[in-house]
Amino acid sequence: MHVLVVGAAGMIGRKLVQRLVGDGKLNGDDIGRLTLADIVPVPVPAGTADVVVVTADLSQGGEAERLIGLRPDIIFHLAAVVSGEAEADFDKGYQINLDGTRCLFEAIRLEGQKEPYCPRVVFCSSLAVFGPPFASPIDDDFLTAPLTSYGTQKAMAELLLSDYSRRGFFDGVGIRLPTICIRPGKPNAAASGFFSNILREPLVGQEAVLPVEEGVRHWFASPRAAISFLIHAAGIDLSGLGARRNLIMPGLSATVADQLAALESVAGAGARRLVRHEPDARIQAIVDGWAFDYAPRLALSLGFRAETTFGEIIAAHIEDELGGNLP
Amino acid sequence: MHVLVVGAAGMIGRKLVQRLVGDGKLNGDDIGRLTLADIVPVPVPAGTADVVVVTADLSQGGEAERLIGLRPDIIFHLAAVVSGEAEADFDKGYQINLDGTRCLFEAIRLEGQKEPYCPRVVFCSSLAVFGPPFASPIDDDFLTAPLTSYGTQKAMAELLLSDYSRRGFFDGVGIRLPTICIRPGKPNAAASGFFSNILREPLVGQEAVLPVEEGVRHWFASPRAAISFLIHAAGIDLSGLGARRNLIMPGLSATVADQLAALESVAGAGARRLVRHEPDARIQAIVDGWAFDYAPRLALSLGFRAETTFGEIIAAHIEDELGGNLP
Repeated sequence: MHVLVVGAAGMIGRKLVQRLVGDGKLNGDDIGRLTLADIVPVPVPAGTADVVVVTADLSQGGEAERLIGLRPDIIFHLAAVVSGEAEADFDKGYQINLDGTRCLFEAIRLEGQKEPYCPRVVFCSSLAVFGPPFASPIDDDFLTAPLTSYGTQKAMAELLLSDYSRRGFFDGVGIRLPTICIRPGKPNAAASGFFSNILREPLVGQEAVLPVEEGVRHWFASPRAAISFLIHAAGIDLSGLGARRNLIMPGLSATVADQLAALESVAGAGARRLVRHEPDARIQAIVDGWAFDYAPRLALSLGFRAETTFGEIIAAHIEDELGGNLP
Repeated sequence: MHVLVVGAAGMIGRKLVQRLVGDGKLNGDDIGRLTLADIVPVPVPAGTADVVVVTADLSQGGEAERLIGLRPDIIFHLAAVVSGEAEADFDKGYQINLDGTRCLFEAIRLEGQKEPYCPRVVFCSSLAVFGPPFASPIDDDFLTAPLTSYGTQKAMAELLLSDYSRRGFFDGVGIRLPTICIRPGKPNAAASGFFSNILREPLVGQEAVLPVEEGVRHWFASPRAAISFLIHAAGIDLSGLGARRNLIMPGLSATVADQLAALESVAGAGARRLVRHEPDARIQAIVDGWAFDYAPRLALSLGFRAETTFGEIIAAHIEDELGGNLP
């Protein structure tokens, strides 16, 4: 089996590649070939598969065709400019998130005109396709009326995915990920960054700032769960979905207070005390505008599963990022 | 005031131009300049406005920029490949309905970078943005999950329209038209053609074929109502809509039996007898898959109005197409 990961250098991409190389199999078949593409160079993973790394911008002429000419069986499309950047740089957001995706999809369609070809395409979408006023809960039938250019680009890509799947050019599924927590790495300035900061930093004895009230509720999944969604999406039967190919992924609905209680339970009251509450009205206002109540019925019926407690999310972080032990 | 009509050679385009030239005004201001664009040559209307005709494909480099460089105040964007053609010719549908629209929107954005510019854009969308399973009724918050490439292209264009409006590049509104009835011209082979054929032909003493049961219900507006929607959309305050800029237009919910009763009432039992029922299982199946129950709440609240009886629709046809009298 030949697996292609587009956007392999990002946080999710690297973790997916690590999992694929570790498993050596996907959908029960040996991964004989692994092609990793990104706009920046992808580190070559240690492992047994035949790995090819491609550094390319798929929105540029011919790049997607060259990649798809290799006829991968499973394509994970994770490449994206993130929300803040897509809002700040209008051209770049549309170029990467819309044109890059369309070029990839078109390359698959055109490859199929040479010789029959219908790969599985797993597309990383986002809950940013939704905008207020929200339903409670938001289900798979909720209107995609985004309030960001990023969300617009993802919603447009979802429409393409459904149309290309309906017409049989590929067998696609769009995965709308919850907020990923605990994000590995360093604290970042994204408005949602604190959800990870307030756990990741105290777990290693560092201070963290909480800019919002503890009552704030949000929709979470661990990086490990996100990877499990992608892997699961690569293998399931999608024929029952018809033309609606974009799914809200399951998540853990939890408050900041739930996060902090789990932190204290795992790492003690000392760790909890490292979280300093410094109210930031700007961030509170942004976060108050986010949806937090989702009903991922289709995904649950298809067997997708997320964590059910923040203790599990923290345990996954300790195993995957801290070598299994707190310092 | 300078008004641009893109897609001015089509059925709706020609009627809109006729109305604009007849009124001489839009939103209370004199139309000093009228630019008519289409991919095929547009007949120059008789009238007083300064009329410029442009024959161009907006999806081709530079064409949209040249047009928008004229800085029209109001832009009607009606250009489209119709549903059947977009399904049959995948490339052409995306090129005209998606790329052409995006090129137009981009040209407006880039013109605004030279010097502040924020025209009103009235975009002709379609109820084809919706696909089954349908809600009953379908309202403005219903998911856009189309089941055709045409519907996909319109839904993607609607997303662009909302994002460009949200970012202040223009002040846009998308108008989802009901099935237009009575379409002028000759009987056509579109699956929906009979809705017009069974009235238009008997009104002038010609036979027509009804391929479905009389109980079939559908959502209608006259060509005159469609033009009134476009004119109304050019002038109303859209600021209350926020980022959701695409509106289901009001229509008349009626059955084929309602149509035939109105025909008999206007033109007599003889006209009614010219409609021959020849059941066509293929067309019946297509029509059974269409939605017919809409709740156009936003449009009604903004003052859009359609006909309320089929008698009005037939009367409009007689006035507008038959010189006010039956033969």
